[in-house]
Amino acid sequence: MNIPNIPAHAPSPGTAPTLADPDTPFAVVDVQRTLRNIERLSARADRLGVALRPHVKTAKSLDVARLLQDGTPCPVTVSTLAEAETFAEGGYTDITYAVGIAPHKLPRVLALLRRGVTLRVLLDSTEQAASVADASRRAGLPLPAQIEIDCDGHRGGLRPDAPALTEIGRILHDAGCLDGVLTHAGESYFAHTAEDRRLAARNERDTAVAAAERLRAAGLPVATVSVGSTPTAHAAEDLTGVTELRAGNYVFFDLVMAGIGVCHLQDLALSVVVTVIGHRPEHGWIITDGGWMAMSRDRGTAVQAQDQGYGLVTDLAGDLLPGLVMTAASQEHGTLTARDGAHLPDLPVGTRLRILPNHACATAAQHRGYHVIDGTRSTDTAPAVQAFWERVTGW
Amino acid sequence: MNIPNIPAHAPSPGTAPTLADPDTPFAVVDVQRTLRNIERLSARADRLGVALRPHVKTAKSLDVARLLQDGTPCPVTVSTLAEAETFAEGGYTDITYAVGIAPHKLPRVLALLRRGVTLRVLLDSTEQAASVADASRRAGLPLPAQIEIDCDGHRGGLRPDAPALTEIGRILHDAGCLDGVLTHAGESYFAHTAEDRRLAARNERDTAVAAAERLRAAGLPVATVSVGSTPTAHAAEDLTGVTELRAGNYVFFDLVMAGIGVCHLQDLALSVVVTVIGHRPEHGWIITDGGWMAMSRDRGTAVQAQDQGYGLVTDLAGDLLPGLVMTAASQEHGTLTARDGAHLPDLPVGTRLRILPNHACATAAQHRGYHVIDGTRSTDTAPAVQAFWERVTGW
Repeated sequence: MNIPNIPAHAPSPGTAPTLADPDTPFAVVDVQRTLRNIERLSARADRLGVALRPHVKTAKSLDVARLLQDGTPCPVTVSTLAEAETFAEGGYTDITYAVGIAPHKLPRVLALLRRGVTLRVLLDSTEQAASVADASRRAGLPLPAQIEIDCDGHRGGLRPDAPALTEIGRILHDAGCLDGVLTHAGESYFAHTAEDRRLAARNERDTAVAAAERLRAAGLPVATVSVGSTPTAHAAEDLTGVTELRAGNYVFFDLVMAGIGVCHLQDLALSVVVTVIGHRPEHGWIITDGGWMAMSRDRGTAVQAQDQGYGLVTDLAGDLLPGLVMTAASQEHGTLTARDGAHLPDLPVGTRLRILPNHACATAAQHRGYHVIDGTRSTDTAPAVQAFWERVTGW
Repeated sequence: MNIPNIPAHAPSPGTAPTLADPDTPFAVVDVQRTLRNIERLSARADRLGVALRPHVKTAKSLDVARLLQDGTPCPVTVSTLAEAETFAEGGYTDITYAVGIAPHKLPRVLALLRRGVTLRVLLDSTEQAASVADASRRAGLPLPAQIEIDCDGHRGGLRPDAPALTEIGRILHDAGCLDGVLTHAGESYFAHTAEDRRLAARNERDTAVAAAERLRAAGLPVATVSVGSTPTAHAAEDLTGVTELRAGNYVFFDLVMAGIGVCHLQDLALSVVVTVIGHRPEHGWIITDGGWMAMSRDRGTAVQAQDQGYGLVTDLAGDLLPGLVMTAASQEHGTLTARDGAHLPDLPVGTRLRILPNHACATAAQHRGYHVIDGTRSTDTAPAVQAFWERVTGW
């Protein structure tokens, strides 16, 4: 692990900072839980005989990414060119930008390709394919592109039987740009049973492979067949014909993933430390200094069987305070209430708590970086801060 | 206005950048609309005979704040100590930190006081008052504090008849710390008629004045009686006994404020520029590269009569595309759909659009700063970018 940086507003030098020290609110990453989550999916991918291409959009951190493969750069997926540029700077040379390409972004893609980074772009229209082919020809540089395939009506992509599929494949191939196909089972976030997730994983695989086969039948070579989402990656049983698996959220997990059963609450590696700043006993409220600016407005569990509000509450050591939920948020205020007749604990002003988020990607995005702890070192009170890890911001 | 900075990923030097140039998504501020919004509330405050203390938590920008009073620092409200420190650095010496104080933050407050900044803190418990009094005595520096008053059950604060009110007042006064009372009609965001907002404003004023009178009757001097929220500030008819008015959102406004009738859509000064990256005609979807990372997850209009999804859509010049709504968001994807049988416009890949947000405070927080345009300069296509204005981040 890194030599610790000085956390923002740390106590005076010489004092070992703990989670009791930095000004609140701030984001915390439990490095041991993160490593365990990473190891779990790594082992799965090995068993399935498929390469893993983690999506770094959740943590957006070179330091967290160092945990993926013992510090060696591995293939990664990114959600912004800012991530691609930061990871290229960090030595990553095999990157997939998994958001449909806007033609005006191609100069930044070409700049990375010229630096020796294999940066793949994604597209699902003949217009985009023509732009990529044209940019590639003018640059004299093959610009590898994948065709986005829609497996579940979630967002973008072509159905594998779409007439445009082979046309796009042809445009890309003729310019030396065709790399393969990519699909993402976005609807699997709503698959509430293990069986539903297995079916979603099978459908994701079948759809991607069908698209690849159709292109191959048209004489178009397909190197990459990329599938994945955190729920399907943890449910897939057979990935024959798939060359790589993508997932992002799994490094931290969150209440949405715990709510559908992909992980347990003890796997959640991201939390936000807040401080009690007031009480409204007549309403049953405890007020904290962590509002939506610290947690995000994401309420992904609102559509689940158990709505977890803006998050569940633990003490500084990470032990759940049973029945306590963050039920409301304004910009810099959070409201905690007791659920189902639970006792509202006595938490004086100044008490620090940790909030487990609905959606790790959204909550992490509200912070400049992470205070890092080693959750396995037992402590009665405040775990020591091992490091401060910065995030990539912007686009 | 500032000399323009080079926007991130601007075209080559020598080309005047317009909203058609920077890589998307990015946030835009229309400086003329902002000025008009500022002028409107300024004139109201003048008519009401009350000082205005704008809340800078929405824009979080020294550059936007320069518009408040012709470049001269004015009294401001902040939501974080990071804002207080940045504004102090920018020459602001009269600042109220309007979130209940956590005792561990007092060293940063004292550091600003020692620099000559009058920084007021907020509290609503005897514990906090004792911490403030104690810190003040040990520092030998009066630490001005306001007592938070609850006028509508929205969040924190004491009711004006709460037994603790005078006790807190006494603790503060004895340490030379008692500055006054502050209340915020947070429930006025849900006041859907002008009459409801007038009543909310009257109640906000009456409650704050009642609390001040109770303290005065106990022999405790009250200098500041501070009230405000964007809806009540625009509805108040009589602020007798009030010394200052606070509001923040009004500099930009947003769809929530337009939805309850505090402003018109043409007043919205903040938007996000996105690019069309795909089409799903079989679903009636246009896909853009602006997801919740660019817009935030805030869906404040979901509880209004007209749910505006993640936002309304305009062309680059700011003209609404009737019936087009951003109805879904993932991290870096937005989905636009046509409402109420409206025609889905033909917007090829690469088309740039602007999205008007639900909640300006939340959407602005997703960006490092603002590309600034002068919306009054008529243009058929893409307004020129006048400057890039940075935001304060973190806590």
